[in-house]
Amino acid sequence: MATDQNKFQAIISHCKEYGFVFQSSEIYDGLSAVYDYGQNGAQLKKNIRDYWWKSMTQMHENIVGIDAAIFMHPTTWKASGHVDNFSDPMIDNKDSKKRYRVDHLIEGHAETLSKEAGDALIEQMDNLLKDNDFAGLKKLIEDNKIKCSVSGTVNWTDVRQFNLMFSTQLGSVTDEASEIYLRPETAQGIFVNFLNVQKTGRMKIPFGIAQVGKAFRNEIVARQFIFRMREFEQMEMQFFIRPGTQKEWYAYWKEERLKWHLSLGTSPEKYRYHDHVKLAHYADAAVDIEFDFPIGFKEVEGIHSRTDFDLKSHQEYSKKKIQYFDTETNQNYIPYVIETSIGLDRMFLLTVCNAYAEEDLSKDGKEDSRVVMRFPAKLAPVQLAIFPLTKKDGLPELAKELMDKCKSSFYCFYEEKDAIGKRYRRQDAIGTPFCVTIDHQTKEDNTVTIRYRDSMEQERVPMDKVKEIVLNKINE
Amino acid sequence: MATDQNKFQAIISHCKEYGFVFQSSEIYDGLSAVYDYGQNGAQLKKNIRDYWWKSMTQMHENIVGIDAAIFMHPTTWKASGHVDNFSDPMIDNKDSKKRYRVDHLIEGHAETLSKEAGDALIEQMDNLLKDNDFAGLKKLIEDNKIKCSVSGTVNWTDVRQFNLMFSTQLGSVTDEASEIYLRPETAQGIFVNFLNVQKTGRMKIPFGIAQVGKAFRNEIVARQFIFRMREFEQMEMQFFIRPGTQKEWYAYWKEERLKWHLSLGTSPEKYRYHDHVKLAHYADAAVDIEFDFPIGFKEVEGIHSRTDFDLKSHQEYSKKKIQYFDTETNQNYIPYVIETSIGLDRMFLLTVCNAYAEEDLSKDGKEDSRVVMRFPAKLAPVQLAIFPLTKKDGLPELAKELMDKCKSSFYCFYEEKDAIGKRYRRQDAIGTPFCVTIDHQTKEDNTVTIRYRDSMEQERVPMDKVKEIVLNKINE
Repeated sequence: MATDQNKFQAIISHCKEYGFVFQSSEIYDGLSAVYDYGQNGAQLKKNIRDYWWKSMTQMHENIVGIDAAIFMHPTTWKASGHVDNFSDPMIDNKDSKKRYRVDHLIEGHAETLSKEAGDALIEQMDNLLKDNDFAGLKKLIEDNKIKCSVSGTVNWTDVRQFNLMFSTQLGSVTDEASEIYLRPETAQGIFVNFLNVQKTGRMKIPFGIAQVGKAFRNEIVARQFIFRMREFEQMEMQFFIRPGTQKEWYAYWKEERLKWHLSLGTSPEKYRYHDHVKLAHYADAAVDIEFDFPIGFKEVEGIHSRTDFDLKSHQEYSKKKIQYFDTETNQNYIPYVIETSIGLDRMFLLTVCNAYAEEDLSKDGKEDSRVVMRFPAKLAPVQLAIFPLTKKDGLPELAKELMDKCKSSFYCFYEEKDAIGKRYRRQDAIGTPFCVTIDHQTKEDNTVTIRYRDSMEQERVPMDKVKEIVLNKINE
Repeated sequence: MATDQNKFQAIISHCKEYGFVFQSSEIYDGLSAVYDYGQNGAQLKKNIRDYWWKSMTQMHENIVGIDAAIFMHPTTWKASGHVDNFSDPMIDNKDSKKRYRVDHLIEGHAETLSKEAGDALIEQMDNLLKDNDFAGLKKLIEDNKIKCSVSGTVNWTDVRQFNLMFSTQLGSVTDEASEIYLRPETAQGIFVNFLNVQKTGRMKIPFGIAQVGKAFRNEIVARQFIFRMREFEQMEMQFFIRPGTQKEWYAYWKEERLKWHLSLGTSPEKYRYHDHVKLAHYADAAVDIEFDFPIGFKEVEGIHSRTDFDLKSHQEYSKKKIQYFDTETNQNYIPYVIETSIGLDRMFLLTVCNAYAEEDLSKDGKEDSRVVMRFPAKLAPVQLAIFPLTKKDGLPELAKELMDKCKSSFYCFYEEKDAIGKRYRRQDAIGTPFCVTIDHQTKEDNTVTIRYRDSMEQERVPMDKVKEIVLNKINE
């Protein structure tokens, strides 16, 4: 078995080789930190998205979905704090013209020092960052003689804030044109629509609004494959509650969301909670659900007690009353909010990392191995592969018959070329849970061989039971 | 019945009132030509998207899906022709600072002239546009003394091209930062991934690649509700074929796509083909599928024979060989392409317009009416509403029992407040095909009243048949 970093590289290669993830615009040598999902990846991603959407909306009577635009009124981002706070302090080396995030530059230097000296440096930096003391940060860099790795000089510009939002110009008519942002999170689309949804849907608190959609962040350090991308997809749910009940609802969603992850059959040891000590300006409690990736435990989902920060702020900026009348307590209030926010691309990466296995199948001195993606059946991009043993004797016709019977219920794949063993291995590599082979015996007694991906066991079953077997597993 | 323009306004109001479509960032007085989908709209849109996706990919063995990023390498848009050609000539009035699309300005003036003079003016304009003769266009405006409607003057700037793509800056490090575009169409994400998909998916021509995703155009005149938006969603499929077979495949997809529309039960008279006479630079044949909206027949989908223009152009710009080896003919070639391209938001608008009905239900001198959305059951945002007649006597418990049985199979809605008649009408307004009422008799014999949206008929059925009745209709 490969080491973890090697395993991560092997997974990235596998993703490319089997049509899960391609570098964006690869024929033009790619676009940094942007990726495209190939034929198997697109379906896997859609299946994850649909599973989340269904479990959050369809299965919860008091949660509805919306689909807000990526473009929003720019004042939205004033109110949310993103215009003022969503930025990193940066510094440029005047000789190399290379720009660095200040914290990364100093942290990198701290790693070259003794533990004691390094920790002291980090502490100094943290204090300056907290105070937004940019002159102090520059002085700290200069005093420590931290050099640019390209030019090797300490010839630095001043420290400046760099906002992580992408901006563009909306409208062409000069006096109407305005600078807008690509949303850095989907949450605000829910907040600005709170009243519209609550009123037209006659929603009663507690209730939630869910949304899936693209968000964009001009990350300075965007790396680790699809873990941190500049264009990514979020699945968020904002749960609106009575003020004062946030502790219990926070605890509820913290537990509920981990249950959701475990419902996909992943081993509980692969997950852990990470409580935030330092809280964002809008939160009174926050926790990450972390997964044990080959590159270590990393955040997949966050549960945040956002208080009434967002709705209150939109009320101030819009001058529109954003309140809810609670018929049980006869009170008007701005609801509190518990947010669950999961990165779809990260959930995709989690699913792929958790499914990926290299297996040694050597037996009796004969070397053999396979790579198998042990996806949950409901998420697999192909759910049933159908193989006629040969291209003749009416076997393809029988296979097509089965295909026609099944394909409206789940994703089927048909193939008639190459040896059966080879075809099985290709399906293992994309994670197809079931393969069915139609052979000459099928013509006699209408039975087929069904082969299970995980155990590699095969058994003979009546052809008209195949659909049921697959459906049962998918709906498990 | 309202007149057509009134009907369109009524539909827009209905969409807002019942949580289908809201103006984007409405609390900030909206963002021009951008809309958000509310709780019912988001689900309707998702159902349309899923129906298209399933019918194009899952139901076609030789079509796979991908999900490419919105951000692409900027050279993509050089190769596609968008950097050079995707623009409109504009002119500014120096006094009012108002900008106009040159063709709209001249057309507006032509309408004030006699038919003969107007036609002559349009012909002159068309010739100048064809030649990109901007000086000539300016002279035409001045010679005809065409005035700005705001300033009333003829004090014009020169005519300039205005590109319809949105641009933004990717990357923060100065020497890496580059101007990129928000994709104006999803098609190019398919073309640049052609080789990746073909090779990793071992695809054999003819085969298709489908994609759903956002696209962005900085439209000068963006209007008519969600018909023409600056941010919109496309559902596209590019079908790769052997050169020389484009005529037959074009005819095939032209017919096939209309069949798809009709499979949703829409009356065939509501549709028509509109063949393009003037073809885009990449096409050798093109047709629109138009629908009879309340605002007239308008394009919903386009089928285009794109030749090998795009792949060939990407081959030139990327210097990478984009060819396919055809084992049947033993030839290497750049495939030809037939594209089917449908606007998801337009399909949404079509579905809403086609479903919307105002019905006079007056009887025996008593005035009554309803608004009903006659959505196909498979597309309806809510598929079954479950009502206990009263809030007591164990009826809510029985209703919840039915809810628990059904909700994992389709979208259910539960309500226990208000008179049953009122609850029915609210479900009519959002297009719920079935309502079920649990009453005291249910406790005796386990039967319920099922009420059909379209006929408003009610019948008594065993409670354990309800799921099957709804599922049969959805899967029809």
